[in-house]
Amino acid sequence: MIKIAIVGGTGYTGVELIRLLAGHEQVQLVQLTSRSEAGTRVDQFFPSLRGVTDICYSNLELEKLAECDVVFFATPHGVAMQHTPYLLAHNTKVIDLAADFRLQSLADFTQWYGIEHSCPDVLKQAVYGLPELNRVQIKKAQVIGNPGCYPTTALLGLQPLLKHGLVASPIIIDAKSGISGAGRQAKTNLLMAEAADNFQAYGVAGHRHLPEIQQGVAHMLTSADTAAQPLQVRFLPHLVPMIRGMFSSIHVQLNQAGQQTDLQRLYEACYAQEFFVDVLPKGTYPDTRSVRASNRLRIAVHQQDNLATILVVQDNLVKGAAGQAVQNMNIMCNLPETMALTHVPVVP
Amino acid sequence: MIKIAIVGGTGYTGVELIRLLAGHEQVQLVQLTSRSEAGTRVDQFFPSLRGVTDICYSNLELEKLAECDVVFFATPHGVAMQHTPYLLAHNTKVIDLAADFRLQSLADFTQWYGIEHSCPDVLKQAVYGLPELNRVQIKKAQVIGNPGCYPTTALLGLQPLLKHGLVASPIIIDAKSGISGAGRQAKTNLLMAEAADNFQAYGVAGHRHLPEIQQGVAHMLTSADTAAQPLQVRFLPHLVPMIRGMFSSIHVQLNQAGQQTDLQRLYEACYAQEFFVDVLPKGTYPDTRSVRASNRLRIAVHQQDNLATILVVQDNLVKGAAGQAVQNMNIMCNLPETMALTHVPVVP
Amino acid sequence: MIKIAIVGGTGYTGVELIRLLAGHEQVQLVQLTSRSEAGTRVDQFFPSLRGVTDICYSNLELEKLAECDVVFFATPHGVAMQHTPYLLAHNTKVIDLAADFRLQSLADFTQWYGIEHSCPDVLKQAVYGLPELNRVQIKKAQVIGNPGCYPTTALLGLQPLLKHGLVASPIIIDAKSGISGAGRQAKTNLLMAEAADNFQAYGVAGHRHLPEIQQGVAHMLTSADTAAQPLQVRFLPHLVPMIRGMFSSIHVQLNQAGQQTDLQRLYEACYAQEFFVDVLPKGTYPDTRSVRASNRLRIAVHQQDNLATILVVQDNLVKGAAGQAVQNMNIMCNLPETMALTHVPVVP
Amino acid sequence: MIKIAIVGGTGYTGVELIRLLAGHEQVQLVQLTSRSEAGTRVDQFFPSLRGVTDICYSNLELEKLAECDVVFFATPHGVAMQHTPYLLAHNTKVIDLAADFRLQSLADFTQWYGIEHSCPDVLKQAVYGLPELNRVQIKKAQVIGNPGCYPTTALLGLQPLLKHGLVASPIIIDAKSGISGAGRQAKTNLLMAEAADNFQAYGVAGHRHLPEIQQGVAHMLTSADTAAQPLQVRFLPHLVPMIRGMFSSIHVQLNQAGQQTDLQRLYEACYAQEFFVDVLPKGTYPDTRSVRASNRLRIAVHQQDNLATILVVQDNLVKGAAGQAVQNMNIMCNLPETMALTHVPVVP
Repeated sequence: MIKIAIVGGTGYTGVELIRLLAGHEQVQLVQLTSRSEAGTRVDQFFPSLRGVTDICYSNLELEKLAECDVVFFATPHGVAMQHTPYLLAHNTKVIDLAADFRLQSLADFTQWYGIEHSCPDVLKQAVYGLPELNRVQIKKAQVIGNPGCYPTTALLGLQPLLKHGLVASPIIIDAKSGISGAGRQAKTNLLMAEAADNFQAYGVAGHRHLPEIQQGVAHMLTSADTAAQPLQVRFLPHLVPMIRGMFSSIHVQLNQAGQQTDLQRLYEACYAQEFFVDVLPKGTYPDTRSVRASNRLRIAVHQQDNLATILVVQDNLVKGAAGQAVQNMNIMCNLPETMALTHVPVVP
Repeated sequence: MIKIAIVGGTGYTGVELIRLLAGHEQVQLVQLTSRSEAGTRVDQFFPSLRGVTDICYSNLELEKLAECDVVFFATPHGVAMQHTPYLLAHNTKVIDLAADFRLQSLADFTQWYGIEHSCPDVLKQAVYGLPELNRVQIKKAQVIGNPGCYPTTALLGLQPLLKHGLVASPIIIDAKSGISGAGRQAKTNLLMAEAADNFQAYGVAGHRHLPEIQQGVAHMLTSADTAAQPLQVRFLPHLVPMIRGMFSSIHVQLNQAGQQTDLQRLYEACYAQEFFVDVLPKGTYPDTRSVRASNRLRIAVHQQDNLATILVVQDNLVKGAAGQAVQNMNIMCNLPETMALTHVPVVP
Repeated sequence: MIKIAIVGGTGYTGVELIRLLAGHEQVQLVQLTSRSEAGTRVDQFFPSLRGVTDICYSNLELEKLAECDVVFFATPHGVAMQHTPYLLAHNTKVIDLAADFRLQSLADFTQWYGIEHSCPDVLKQAVYGLPELNRVQIKKAQVIGNPGCYPTTALLGLQPLLKHGLVASPIIIDAKSGISGAGRQAKTNLLMAEAADNFQAYGVAGHRHLPEIQQGVAHMLTSADTAAQPLQVRFLPHLVPMIRGMFSSIHVQLNQAGQQTDLQRLYEACYAQEFFVDVLPKGTYPDTRSVRASNRLRIAVHQQDNLATILVVQDNLVKGAAGQAVQNMNIMCNLPETMALTHVPVVP
Repeated sequence: MIKIAIVGGTGYTGVELIRLLAGHEQVQLVQLTSRSEAGTRVDQFFPSLRGVTDICYSNLELEKLAECDVVFFATPHGVAMQHTPYLLAHNTKVIDLAADFRLQSLADFTQWYGIEHSCPDVLKQAVYGLPELNRVQIKKAQVIGNPGCYPTTALLGLQPLLKHGLVASPIIIDAKSGISGAGRQAKTNLLMAEAADNFQAYGVAGHRHLPEIQQGVAHMLTSADTAAQPLQVRFLPHLVPMIRGMFSSIHVQLNQAGQQTDLQRLYEACYAQEFFVDVLPKGTYPDTRSVRASNRLRIAVHQQDNLATILVVQDNLVKGAAGQAVQNMNIMCNLPETMALTHVPVVP
């Protein structure tokens, strides 16, 4: 059995990790930390877990974490990087669900997160944990920067276009997220009386997922077989009055090659071998509930002359966070990639 | 023009008072206080008010409040009672939307609110502001304890039964409230990701509205023409995943007299002259949206042999709070009782 | 492998059965019927099932159904009873999720469902499929009347009280259901623009689940060790603006014996061995999300002097329908009762 | 008093017209037609109207309609055009809330609505009822094609840019609507159990509001002072799990002139005199609740180098339908344009 720890188990990605790992036959959750709830049974904090686990929250003790095979950090930005060097030194793998190991540019990291990176050397060897792009590297990785929810949809939605150099315009990413993406923090604007029956935009002037998307776009353009022109990215996130679910509408203009390509076929070919990425039939639309509580991400391709609109849905807490983290763990630990991730979406 | 002040204008009852008073031809809102937001334009805090008012929040200054004719306290419990003696001394009427002037028993007040009452003499002259029960007294009142939302539905739902002494059992009040009733506070359990798509009970062991209901029940029994037996009250509130609306289901057993009474006719007669209380046709059910954003309260009566179920709906922020406060103000100021309160419910 | 068929696979209980059975290692779904969708792939009808199954809807052919070991009827009332005699004659077990085999009284069946029962003999041998009450009989049953969602909460919530004869008053069941309980039918009152941000009662004058609850109550009283007095039942269902979840608040007065009983301990003892029934710690409240998408049912007991309030939550589509049906199947087929039913509730 | 009729009073735009007109001092609703509900009191059909009006639905009788000063058609497409010639001949003004008088191109009308236009001559004199663009023509109009909800946001959002010829790219309109926009029809996909807690796109391949937006864009480009290049329009509507509210995110690239323009100032100047159009302060975001149940439309302008994103919110049933219709009526009847349209948005 693989020994697992979760650091920061009181938030939504934490409780989702517990839900997913509870059904995993090859792992055992041996530690769950929380400063504020140390000593409390997790099923008292989350009664949904009654009958599932009797583990208690404990304080973070590095030596104990180092006894685990894999440690998930479901903490705010800046926590994982403090402890990762120690854990690596003790042969413990790290998967950070926050942003500490996502951006390779130290300047970008500091600009967007407001802190200096504490272990640039570790960052260099960290792998961006998007398996459908980086599976080979993930297999060998000791440290994973688990992707942000928006970037997961954006990069998987754009990959076939960028890999083949088919885009001729700025990329418009008009994205919408359920409110669980904002986390389990007591903020007024996240109250139900504020956020329900309401729809709003935020962060157009600058959202932390923008540099992460830009990094991924630049990387895919560079590795494409074509003369890469840098592309502008416009990223506009919105808040949807629902709990789970993310929907990204990506609008681009196609170049000559793009206009002559059958995008539907291109996407189907690109993702034919990917269990978790589903290219929908031509002419259909995805909805977020079709992936609710599952690790699937679905893509629909709408092409009209020189314009292409790519629609991508996922559950922001699963493929957009905890599910992808478990997928990365499976790959790193040489387990079947889909293990414990085959939940059927909950509909209705 | 009647000069009005609102103390505590950043919560939901505060913004609802502003909405209602903005359409009132006989009053002028001249002061709006908030410690935390002093200096801020209210329409910056609540953009829904852009184009409606350009008033700014200010600090509470008693002398300025005393220049007003009526002061509404939309504050937490315990604030109004500090300032009311001063205001009364300056001939300023007070309407408290919190609980400072609801309970005549000092012991009950201290037990349920955890503080001593600071002005018991003022409390004695305060009137419980439920116009359909106490209109005559409200007309002469200087201080109004504006009823709680749950008690408004309970007492208006029970009045015809209790006035005629028709109940033979404990009173079961199984009540459900939209989440705005919990106020605009950054609490985790009120987050949309926690409260939406969810239904829960709370406070069966003791909710602050219970003694207020008990006080009203006892009062109605005493004033009834029949030998009054005290009645137990069981009050179970629930939280509904919606923003506005309150639905109280009241279950009682009828005594002999009750079983021989046509309750439908009784209720219709009791409320025939009440603009804001609507007795629905026999056999129908109310829904909360039928009163959304309006000051109406609707009642349906379901009688079967010895069992009666009374269903009551209101908008918890209007008839359950700010609307009733304006209704009280109209009565106290000799204005038509319905002035600025004739909004048509917003459906859908 | 046990061969399974689902008759009527386009509704919510149908798709939920597919979700649950997809994770069941011992069964194989070999037939899925729908008159209107015959020939359509189910994952075209429910895109959430893409990648899960490639089965198509077919027309109902009795001979083919009779090749299965178990047939689930997820159809409107009146369908299962037409085909059950044939299936039994061919040694195929039947689990009806509608009401054909719930009420043992033919008169009640006709009164509440408006049709004559077509196979009273089969009805006599049918077992009411509430495992926590009737496990022994279910094990030997050929035909199961799978309980209604409301009765499941009512009967499991009342069992400890009634078995010990502790109730001294009419039973008030104030129940609340998410809207999926109304099924997947295109009715105006179920539209989101009608039902969202709204709360309403219905059916107090008569809901089809009332005779089912009454039958269960009478049965439990009769089998109790005490002199059984018949008890009145008042059942008031409400519609909650959420998709899944059911919350039943049961209010009773206790007799002398009841007042001297520690109900918390009584309930814990009664359900100590039941995997799917969870008695919450004293003083806590259940919420529906704590069982979302799982087969758990949770109970909280609130006792005060002579009054008891029992709070019960379940997912109406799982323990209230499809999950309980699979639980029954497991028992009938000598499989572990929890097989394919250990989903962790989806929170948030 | 101006005599008013509403044809088709059982849908959402119908009931919203009744709500708005009930507060209008200069008009009297004298007729309300519905084929299916003729003879029923409207407050039986919509209990929210109890105490507001006692009018009954009647059958459509042209002679009676012709006695009115203004007739609103809140009917499906194709109804208004049948009756308008008769009404005009009797000096009755017509405001159609459907599409019969929106598109000047007969070919477009037939292509998108699948029927031939029955009165092209009337169509020619019809005015597109967007007061902020066409106030002068509306004042003299006998027939108004009341704009679609999406086009209202798109055209008011684009006007300042197009009038000054500042756009250099296809126009991307990524729009989101509450579900009431789909009308009060019993369709499966509009059920709460389908549409709540879900987000989906629709109509990218072709939505009926696209040609209406294209017509408006072309018109504004032509009337601009600059050499007009036709612009492509990409229109992608989505369904938001809320009842009311529309949010349109408009993405464009700016030409040289656009990049040198202070768009914030441009928008503020353009709408300085418009009561119902509110340009938000720089750097802020609109949310739909800030206009809930009111006739306001709010715009935020986000400009970054060559990219501009314009965010527009309105209540789809008010400024997007019934409110705009009343605004048109006020203009046509020489009443103050804001009469009966000054509702304060309902927050929370």
